[in-house]
Amino acid sequence: MLAVDSLGAVSYVLTMSYLEQEIFSQPKVLQRLLSREEKNVVEIADAIRRSKCRCIFMVARGSSDNAVLYGKYLFGAKNRLVCSLAAPSLFTLYRQAPDLKDCLLLAVSQSGASDDLCQVVETGRRSASRTLVITNTVDSPLAGLADDVISLRAGREKSVAATKTYTAQLMALAMLSAALSGRQSTWRQLQQVPPLVEKLLTESGGVGVLAQRYRYLDRLSVIGRGYNYATAFELSLKIKELAYVSAEPYSSADFRHGPIAVVQRGFPVLLVAPKGKTLADQRQLARSLIERQAELLVISDSPALLALAHTPLALPAGMPEWLSPMLAVIPGQLFAMHLAAAKNNPLDHPRGLRKVTRTT
Amino acid sequence: MLAVDSLGAVSYVLTMSYLEQEIFSQPKVLQRLLSREEKNVVEIADAIRRSKCRCIFMVARGSSDNAVLYGKYLFGAKNRLVCSLAAPSLFTLYRQAPDLKDCLLLAVSQSGASDDLCQVVETGRRSASRTLVITNTVDSPLAGLADDVISLRAGREKSVAATKTYTAQLMALAMLSAALSGRQSTWRQLQQVPPLVEKLLTESGGVGVLAQRYRYLDRLSVIGRGYNYATAFELSLKIKELAYVSAEPYSSADFRHGPIAVVQRGFPVLLVAPKGKTLADQRQLARSLIERQAELLVISDSPALLALAHTPLALPAGMPEWLSPMLAVIPGQLFAMHLAAAKNNPLDHPRGLRKVTRTT
Repeated sequence: MLAVDSLGAVSYVLTMSYLEQEIFSQPKVLQRLLSREEKNVVEIADAIRRSKCRCIFMVARGSSDNAVLYGKYLFGAKNRLVCSLAAPSLFTLYRQAPDLKDCLLLAVSQSGASDDLCQVVETGRRSASRTLVITNTVDSPLAGLADDVISLRAGREKSVAATKTYTAQLMALAMLSAALSGRQSTWRQLQQVPPLVEKLLTESGGVGVLAQRYRYLDRLSVIGRGYNYATAFELSLKIKELAYVSAEPYSSADFRHGPIAVVQRGFPVLLVAPKGKTLADQRQLARSLIERQAELLVISDSPALLALAHTPLALPAGMPEWLSPMLAVIPGQLFAMHLAAAKNNPLDHPRGLRKVTRTT
Repeated sequence: MLAVDSLGAVSYVLTMSYLEQEIFSQPKVLQRLLSREEKNVVEIADAIRRSKCRCIFMVARGSSDNAVLYGKYLFGAKNRLVCSLAAPSLFTLYRQAPDLKDCLLLAVSQSGASDDLCQVVETGRRSASRTLVITNTVDSPLAGLADDVISLRAGREKSVAATKTYTAQLMALAMLSAALSGRQSTWRQLQQVPPLVEKLLTESGGVGVLAQRYRYLDRLSVIGRGYNYATAFELSLKIKELAYVSAEPYSSADFRHGPIAVVQRGFPVLLVAPKGKTLADQRQLARSLIERQAELLVISDSPALLALAHTPLALPAGMPEWLSPMLAVIPGQLFAMHLAAAKNNPLDHPRGLRKVTRTT
């Protein structure tokens, strides 16, 4: 609900949904995971190193699939490992699966209840060197199939749209990568995440008002690059699930290879562009979008880039780029929630979705 | 241009564009590639087998990136190889690339001129077991970096939107997979492709009239599964590039994990669903979309599935599923072209695109 005070300032108040509670619980969830799973993750990393895996074969669905996309960049850059994202139908429909010799088979799932993921792991573990499941439900069928399990410890997620389990999955992957690298400095950087997420949420009061402008939006593009390619996918999914907007994720490079033709005057583009190696490329894209008179929304900690946006969504400074996806996704989660509210959509139970999706 | 004859029948006539010429040249292009590159592909497959690669690490952009997505299913199902799609930014922006030991590094590019692909191959070939480039331009910088080259022999592609080079890339990948498998029966099936593509094009006269209904369309979802997951991506890209429609590709499973929330009464969904192992799953999705009162467009050779569609785009019968992407993409190419014409968009030079895109 919009409220106007006696000085004419506008603020935005929602009735507390599970979704909002879960978004705001993320600093605690991340902190708990970090402290309680450290020992387990370090032991798992030792076992993986001993197994001499050369490749990580990852399988997931929905938001978890976006989390493993972060893993692809993470394990590639930090651990020099080739990562392959599974095509589940090779295991379930075709029953002609690749040979996973020398691979770590890694499944990521909030519920651990999807039949198709279980089928992939059941078949894949016969040839894989080792099997790891990252889940919020340690007593799930999926967890029962693995050599090792990392528990997200996020508490039950009641909203259909995943938020706290998504950032927890990112954290679990970052912990695993740090443990595999064996560098203490890398591990120490993880400690910066929960307080910065807390700071961001404390300062996020304006997003509800900013979202009003987009009440009649029905399509937009969401662009991220490198580590935040995953963020573009996850925010597209949140905006689709909650606001029923056709949101399309791209890397800035892929966007230039065709999809940019869609951009005309007023076409909305959300750029996810924290500081780091990808910033210059994102800034260049921002300029070319402004030339095309697109409407820019920007999530960044770069004041210069935020200044180019019609709708700037600022991140607190100081997060290393490789960990920025845990921070950068949050203004987008809030934006998707407020946009859904502005469109009078239900927040906890989007049209036609259930918490656990059964697919083959 | 629409034409109405004296009996009131409507037909649709376009001024011949490069795009249309290139779409209609596909049977010849595929036949030429098949006959002239057979020997080369068989030799390359022998060398790859000798190098004992366990994984194919693939890199491409734009339409070529959709072609390698077909490769991921193909090499997984037919050759039991793990496939990884490169994240180019790890090589170009981050300069922290994965170690490609035991991998075949495979780059696919129409022009062979992209700096970023060259950079990936230049770095990647230091650790990869072997390097292969599939391109339409054998004297390109990219081709110069590889151990082996498969030439598409498609003739110059003048339209910005790739059509004949896309299907030629699929054929080159299918030839490589058949040669790697060493099964003569598999190789013989390839011969069925050019005549079936020819038959489809001969019978495709109605697409121009069917496309008129979508003149004011601005978004749709495109769904494919398994081998035709790639087709969903490629058709989304064609529809975006040519018709400036926000077209989003999904597998039927991924679509159920969130994006299906976007579907309301009249929401258009294009299902790419040739007969095969994925048909039952696609039929189930079609039914649930009809319950939601979506507008269905279907590309299929299943009369029962076509009967569920408002706009049926029939495929000739008889193509094995693993080769169906070369056939199934074609009614979609025609649809995208006619939709672009209906929207008065230029066919050969879409807004803001060039034939060779320079990205990092």
